[in-house]
Amino acid sequence: MPVPRSVAAHRQAVVELLTAATARKGTLRLPLVDALGKALAVDLHAPLSLPPFDNSQMDGFAVRSADIPDGGAKLPVSAPVPAGAAPGPLMPGHAAPIMTGAMMPEGADAVVPVEKATPSSFPEPSVQDAEVVLPVVAPGTFVRPSGSDIDKGALALAAGTLLGPGQLGLLAALGMVKVEVREPLRVLLLTTGDEVLEPGAELTQGKIYDSNGTLLETSMRQAGLEVVRTAISDDKPEGLLTVLDRHLGGNDDGGTPVDVIVTTGGVSKGAYEVVRLAMAGQPVDFLHVAMQPGGPQGLGTFNGVPFIGFPGNPVSCLVSFEMFLRPALSQVTGAPAPRPVLKARLAEALTSPLGKHQVRRGTAVDGVVRMEGGAGSHLLHALARANALVQIPEDVTELAEGDEVEVWML
Amino acid sequence: MPVPRSVAAHRQAVVELLTAATARKGTLRLPLVDALGKALAVDLHAPLSLPPFDNSQMDGFAVRSADIPDGGAKLPVSAPVPAGAAPGPLMPGHAAPIMTGAMMPEGADAVVPVEKATPSSFPEPSVQDAEVVLPVVAPGTFVRPSGSDIDKGALALAAGTLLGPGQLGLLAALGMVKVEVREPLRVLLLTTGDEVLEPGAELTQGKIYDSNGTLLETSMRQAGLEVVRTAISDDKPEGLLTVLDRHLGGNDDGGTPVDVIVTTGGVSKGAYEVVRLAMAGQPVDFLHVAMQPGGPQGLGTFNGVPFIGFPGNPVSCLVSFEMFLRPALSQVTGAPAPRPVLKARLAEALTSPLGKHQVRRGTAVDGVVRMEGGAGSHLLHALARANALVQIPEDVTELAEGDEVEVWML
Repeated sequence: MPVPRSVAAHRQAVVELLTAATARKGTLRLPLVDALGKALAVDLHAPLSLPPFDNSQMDGFAVRSADIPDGGAKLPVSAPVPAGAAPGPLMPGHAAPIMTGAMMPEGADAVVPVEKATPSSFPEPSVQDAEVVLPVVAPGTFVRPSGSDIDKGALALAAGTLLGPGQLGLLAALGMVKVEVREPLRVLLLTTGDEVLEPGAELTQGKIYDSNGTLLETSMRQAGLEVVRTAISDDKPEGLLTVLDRHLGGNDDGGTPVDVIVTTGGVSKGAYEVVRLAMAGQPVDFLHVAMQPGGPQGLGTFNGVPFIGFPGNPVSCLVSFEMFLRPALSQVTGAPAPRPVLKARLAEALTSPLGKHQVRRGTAVDGVVRMEGGAGSHLLHALARANALVQIPEDVTELAEGDEVEVWML
Repeated sequence: MPVPRSVAAHRQAVVELLTAATARKGTLRLPLVDALGKALAVDLHAPLSLPPFDNSQMDGFAVRSADIPDGGAKLPVSAPVPAGAAPGPLMPGHAAPIMTGAMMPEGADAVVPVEKATPSSFPEPSVQDAEVVLPVVAPGTFVRPSGSDIDKGALALAAGTLLGPGQLGLLAALGMVKVEVREPLRVLLLTTGDEVLEPGAELTQGKIYDSNGTLLETSMRQAGLEVVRTAISDDKPEGLLTVLDRHLGGNDDGGTPVDVIVTTGGVSKGAYEVVRLAMAGQPVDFLHVAMQPGGPQGLGTFNGVPFIGFPGNPVSCLVSFEMFLRPALSQVTGAPAPRPVLKARLAEALTSPLGKHQVRRGTAVDGVVRMEGGAGSHLLHALARANALVQIPEDVTELAEGDEVEVWML
């Protein structure tokens, strides 16, 4: 039996496969809010500075700082500057009431907050010839200079940046209404197995309902992929090949060609391994990764289209997706965000097989992680209680309660 | 000046507001994949056991364990049991080839993996009267008993559970095709300010582009809310009141009534605070939370509809959303998932004002967090680089490089 491939090496193989698939994709120009969760396609430079002009950080009085000596000064009050106005220049020796965010009048170089003035409120607009006593103030005080956030022409966001609320808010502040993003990959998702029925069908003896389709379709959608889901294939390779042919380029049913094929089941060493049989003659490796669950994996191309074959157990499918496909997508396309990784202490002792990277499901709360279910890959109810994947490296066979482990938050 | 309200007390006030809004909402029955990211509306009990029947965990031979003495035994091989088949009973003294996931034949109580058999492969189907030598095996070995994941009738998922891939996969395995979820809240999002222009408009002197609308709409969508966004309101209360009236119940433009109103800007103590002015006579508090940025906040009801008023600076808006609205939503409705919280060490020393909970933006990588930009609430480019909110409690005024802080991952 050949030496199993390491988790890192298999992930790198998936990265290479997705790199090829991604290179064939284009870009989309989307309204900002529709670009949420997608990856920026190009470097974006600021078409204007932020802030676009010097403005006040406080409600206060805009002054020339040189007009106020150390002991303070009584200054005549000029017309107020509301936010959004284009004020005239500040007359020398005057103080202009100014609102937070309002443009500094020409000549003014500092703001004295209204609560430091005497009187500590703005004069009513009806009052003529109002005056205010202000303390000394250093130049630049409570002024947000133009360009202090970003200068016109500077790199605002680099190609590949994941667009979340903060990034899209920045683009809006820069006056943009659309943004060019990488077109998402389109995945053909195909579950296999004679024993597998569509949910909703009548459950007959020896059959189970397909959970992999739902589990992976939602995982893929969450990761920003487009998903084309087929009917379940039974364990006859001809049927599987017919489905694949129908969905790959030049298809006659008007469907869009897919960029990646993902199957579940039929990749290990049993007698009826339909995916293995269907891929005969194609450049596809069926191999064993030193991981539990999710050891048996398929990888290659089918008629030139990148192909990934996950094992058939639902927990193995989820672990395969999270350990290989999702991180490779993050790395290659910039989306989705990688899972947050943290350290947590084990609530219980664990054992793990030597030479296998074990991925257990757990609930991590306040830095402590409890296992949900055993190592078994059929334990879906346990998976549904978990909020984290617990990573136990290949060379670790025993861990004590309180030992620190790496945890990926789902 | 009244004592500022604590962050926790203000969040609790938002929780109470949302509890009232949520109580008026119904439920939706959605196909499983469309329920992704939503909260389950009802307790769901398993309509069948998982696994539905005893099945094999390995490719191997199903046997009666009592048929094999300590030294092993040579047994005649009966018809193979593929996954999905309903096998007949196992003849006493026989061994049945069985595939992973296949139903255990009646009478069989253990599986010997094929690699432990002699010969260590399955006989070809054409071979008559095949025999196999098998080692002793304990009852139950490599059998997944019916109900070992969940028993029929047991609680599968509790009301309020956030539906991710694992939870939806479980429901599929239980044969469900639709699921009842809580109807998302519908938010009317309204940005205000004489200085604020729609992105794409010509930028004139003293004006800035509205980033709050994009920043909050995407934050809200990410959190599972429905968002109705209005045009920007200027600083005249009459205009704002007209927009509010148009969108609140009994409206004549066919729009759906909203459940919550969120505004930005116009809540602090300046001279032109449009939201404050528009809310005069309504049961709305305008108050100061002991938080920086995001101190000025409004909260109450407008014509009976829950109302939340955020301050006008974009960073303050994001911090207000993440500190108050998002966690309150998670707590009250079950969705979205709370932000992952972790501990990280500061890459630099920090100071923070006494009596204010400071929320800085940072980049947390490998347990170390670096600040992005200063404390200023206008620094959107810095925010766009950040992946985390750094929490500095009210009573902390100085932190050294290497000190541990709590970090919320965005």
